[in-house]
Amino acid sequence: MTRVQRLSTLLLKTLRDDPADAETASHRLLVRAGYVRRTAAGVWTWLPLGKRLLDNVARVVREEMDAIGGQEVLLPALLPREPYEASGRWKDYGDLLFRLRDRKGAEYLLGPTHEEIFTLTVKDQCTSYKDLPVILYQVQNKYRDEARPRSGVLRGREFLMKDAYSFDVTDEGLAESYRLHREAYVRIFERLGLDHRIVSAVSGAMGGSASEEFLAPAAAGEDTFADCPRCAYAANTEAVTAAVEPPAQAVHPAPCELDTPATPTIETLAAHLDVPASAILKNVLVRIDGEIAAVGVPGDREVDLGRLAAHLAPAEVELVTADDFAGRPELVRGYVGPQGLDVPYYADPRVAPGTAWITGANKPDTHVRDVVCGRDFTVDRYVDVVVVEPGDPCPACGAGLELGRAIEVGHIFRLGRKYADAFGLDVLGPEGRPVRVTMGSYGIGVSRAVAALAEQTHDERGLCWPREVAPADVHVVAAGKGGEVLELALDVAALLADAGVRVLVDDRGGVSAGVKFADAELMGVPTLLIVGRGAARGRVELRDRRSGAGEELTVEEAVARLTAG
Amino acid sequence: MTRVQRLSTLLLKTLRDDPADAETASHRLLVRAGYVRRTAAGVWTWLPLGKRLLDNVARVVREEMDAIGGQEVLLPALLPREPYEASGRWKDYGDLLFRLRDRKGAEYLLGPTHEEIFTLTVKDQCTSYKDLPVILYQVQNKYRDEARPRSGVLRGREFLMKDAYSFDVTDEGLAESYRLHREAYVRIFERLGLDHRIVSAVSGAMGGSASEEFLAPAAAGEDTFADCPRCAYAANTEAVTAAVEPPAQAVHPAPCELDTPATPTIETLAAHLDVPASAILKNVLVRIDGEIAAVGVPGDREVDLGRLAAHLAPAEVELVTADDFAGRPELVRGYVGPQGLDVPYYADPRVAPGTAWITGANKPDTHVRDVVCGRDFTVDRYVDVVVVEPGDPCPACGAGLELGRAIEVGHIFRLGRKYADAFGLDVLGPEGRPVRVTMGSYGIGVSRAVAALAEQTHDERGLCWPREVAPADVHVVAAGKGGEVLELALDVAALLADAGVRVLVDDRGGVSAGVKFADAELMGVPTLLIVGRGAARGRVELRDRRSGAGEELTVEEAVARLTAG
Repeated sequence: MTRVQRLSTLLLKTLRDDPADAETASHRLLVRAGYVRRTAAGVWTWLPLGKRLLDNVARVVREEMDAIGGQEVLLPALLPREPYEASGRWKDYGDLLFRLRDRKGAEYLLGPTHEEIFTLTVKDQCTSYKDLPVILYQVQNKYRDEARPRSGVLRGREFLMKDAYSFDVTDEGLAESYRLHREAYVRIFERLGLDHRIVSAVSGAMGGSASEEFLAPAAAGEDTFADCPRCAYAANTEAVTAAVEPPAQAVHPAPCELDTPATPTIETLAAHLDVPASAILKNVLVRIDGEIAAVGVPGDREVDLGRLAAHLAPAEVELVTADDFAGRPELVRGYVGPQGLDVPYYADPRVAPGTAWITGANKPDTHVRDVVCGRDFTVDRYVDVVVVEPGDPCPACGAGLELGRAIEVGHIFRLGRKYADAFGLDVLGPEGRPVRVTMGSYGIGVSRAVAALAEQTHDERGLCWPREVAPADVHVVAAGKGGEVLELALDVAALLADAGVRVLVDDRGGVSAGVKFADAELMGVPTLLIVGRGAARGRVELRDRRSGAGEELTVEEAVARLTAG
Repeated sequence: MTRVQRLSTLLLKTLRDDPADAETASHRLLVRAGYVRRTAAGVWTWLPLGKRLLDNVARVVREEMDAIGGQEVLLPALLPREPYEASGRWKDYGDLLFRLRDRKGAEYLLGPTHEEIFTLTVKDQCTSYKDLPVILYQVQNKYRDEARPRSGVLRGREFLMKDAYSFDVTDEGLAESYRLHREAYVRIFERLGLDHRIVSAVSGAMGGSASEEFLAPAAAGEDTFADCPRCAYAANTEAVTAAVEPPAQAVHPAPCELDTPATPTIETLAAHLDVPASAILKNVLVRIDGEIAAVGVPGDREVDLGRLAAHLAPAEVELVTADDFAGRPELVRGYVGPQGLDVPYYADPRVAPGTAWITGANKPDTHVRDVVCGRDFTVDRYVDVVVVEPGDPCPACGAGLELGRAIEVGHIFRLGRKYADAFGLDVLGPEGRPVRVTMGSYGIGVSRAVAALAEQTHDERGLCWPREVAPADVHVVAAGKGGEVLELALDVAALLADAGVRVLVDDRGGVSAGVKFADAELMGVPTLLIVGRGAARGRVELRDRRSGAGEELTVEEAVARLTAG
């Protein structure tokens, strides 16, 4: 039975003003509309109507996971240290893990994701290739001690996630499990009404060979993605690969030093020598897990430390400080060159073998030209590390890439055998020999999807939920003081509820019609049914929240309209 | 749409043998039947069919909470220290709290229950008496660092709980909210098929004026309750009050010392003096939060330290050690008496004013007789502290009490204004003045209810679920090797599922009919439908799991039977 929810008895306090610390629309509006309440930094309470939003997203996720044969389980959030020690994540996750001890001093963590425990569970439960493939999932609180929790429920430290794990005997099996999840995710986001793009991504600390992200384009997003206007290519900018033309065959003269006083920056040097910045090799010194390294990129490009960190994850990456130079006289600030440098040298693929550069001479006030990659210096590791810019060539077709901001709402990983290797997860194969299992893992941020929807669908008047996620189908507003207005509003609400329509009715006394309208628009239920002056004649207004288009109808017509199909 | 769950693809491994550490039936059987898996001490994974048990209990709880107007919310499990500091529970809960720090050093806890945060939420959301009463609830993981997690999911350190909180302006309002919950709980446990008793209880560290527990009688229970065979009285033994007759008016002679060498125990003293043990006043020395105190009880009764701790909660209570006597020569071991003793003196109500006793003389080898309570010594505080024994008089009617073991599955508290006082929770009253809010809190152990049901309903062959909680309605067993057996089993399962019946079908290849029957009985689905030799004739057997009674029917008859009403 569907119940009528009366606002007069609902725990709900809407706010006229934005919370002081709110930077994003979802944060502002979810708080103002009474859906969520902050309990601590990055830790949120879901109030009654907010809980419905969360439940609606979770229901869609469960239905589509069940449809691909997923089996729902529930693992603990409080996890013992040992399996995360075995996988390396106890250390790798660094400060991101919430760690604690029990009364006996045993160490625990609050699970960020559960690859380890799922691997152990399947090792325990499955013995034969006949027991596979299997897809397991859960909808559960996850914990990450973010350095800067912000944007409301968009990036919390406790958040609701659907995490799924596939277990297969063969690579083809993993490919099929991966495809099933990819398609299920498309259906989930379509049903939720969330505009999304599937992009190539960096797998990071999770491990595995390849991964894709589901990104919801939104200005408030923390991710940037590149999109090709000509072909199907799309990738998180972290994962965009440089399209590098092989350098023209050329014989370069020997390196030649240049007297370049007071040119410690690319701009001053380019001006002094009257060359384009792109002819200069810029060398940026960083610390990777504490060890100094240099990163080479063309002088007209910037180093993206976030991309570097993503590629080298879980290593921590930071810029060097002035103190680092003080202790290392061979590192001449503003005049570093890769030739003869005694630290690991990373470079962007544009610093290709055979290319010639102007770069630092490793002594003050001096640069050197005709320094050739492969002849005068070598690159220890190529990493795509420059800040991707609009118009950079698409690695698939060469067209100029477009960039957009987005929220990561899903991430699917071909993990392969990383965790199976860590825990010795084998099953008996068809030939009677043990076969190592191969895995995928697949996450959707359930609470984050609510925020992403708010970001994408809100307007200047408030939230505007897609029907599948909305806390109700119809918001009945009793807009008038007469007893007959309230009576008709409650009658209509009851009629709709009897027909299975989810109804809120604003029956609050002592609240003006204006406030009720403003609250209804703020809360964002898709359809408003307004009982006002026409009540005496049995007439009501049906109004679309998004377009604002309204129509006066008899009660019977309105109910028929709302219960059709 | 109801789906057929095929065992061939289900993550399920049943075990023939009991887990080594399992002491209780629910622990043994839930593990063996593949419902749960241990992840750490007191921390459990719910496997696919176990998750259904949990969901079924939670669904019943939600439906009945909604029916009394409860509004579901979801609070975080990760909670900041400050509110628990304000209520006193950060300290009071001692080692029972899981505490942790974030990367900035701020202190958090994992919520054991959420009175503090609910109080703050209502303070934030409600401003007027018109906003009350309100009932809020959540179904959420709770955390308690038990000293001895045991009995499987019966006493976990992470466990699923429904906790509800009522907020009222008047005492009458609280009484009504309390009544609504009490009645909802009765409906919940009746629907779950859980035999239960409502008993008076000690409120303990939660605070408040009065509480009642819902106990599920079971041999594995950790609680003992007293039940009157004649009247309606029932109480946790912790809360049983002594029925004490006023002593006969008598003039006692002055105390007189007795030479009692080598009689440090009640038994040796009673034998030496040839008096009943009940004539002797036994004085037990304890430490209450570290301070020594004495507890007086009649010599034929034992002190129940658990009861004492429950009454003095959250104080920690422990017995004194030999070292305590070493440092306090005035405490003469075996010869302690309350007269002139310089420590707080607690006593059982049977040590009533006017009663005369033989007791220790506070010097070696000496007792004293005719020591009269109120004349020769005073009691600082009366506490019901003796071990309740079968036949003790009912405090309501005097009949001999019966005792039973039970599992606490629910606890309802009239909290009153303890938390509202701690956080200054007022609303504007009808006269325009602030009114302090009064609260109740109401808990049901959802995961524990699953274990309690297993304890109450299992038999020697395995689990035996009530239909509302069972992971399926019907367990179809394909008992035979012919292709027609499997085909018919799947056909029948599909017919039932189409009619909305929840079906498991054991379609596993290479598993004998005997193993399938044993697994079906272990797993405990209420009805077995066996497709075997009669398959060729279109006949199947319908068998009741509990009684074992079977009947051969045509497929049509069986389906009609299972889908009727």
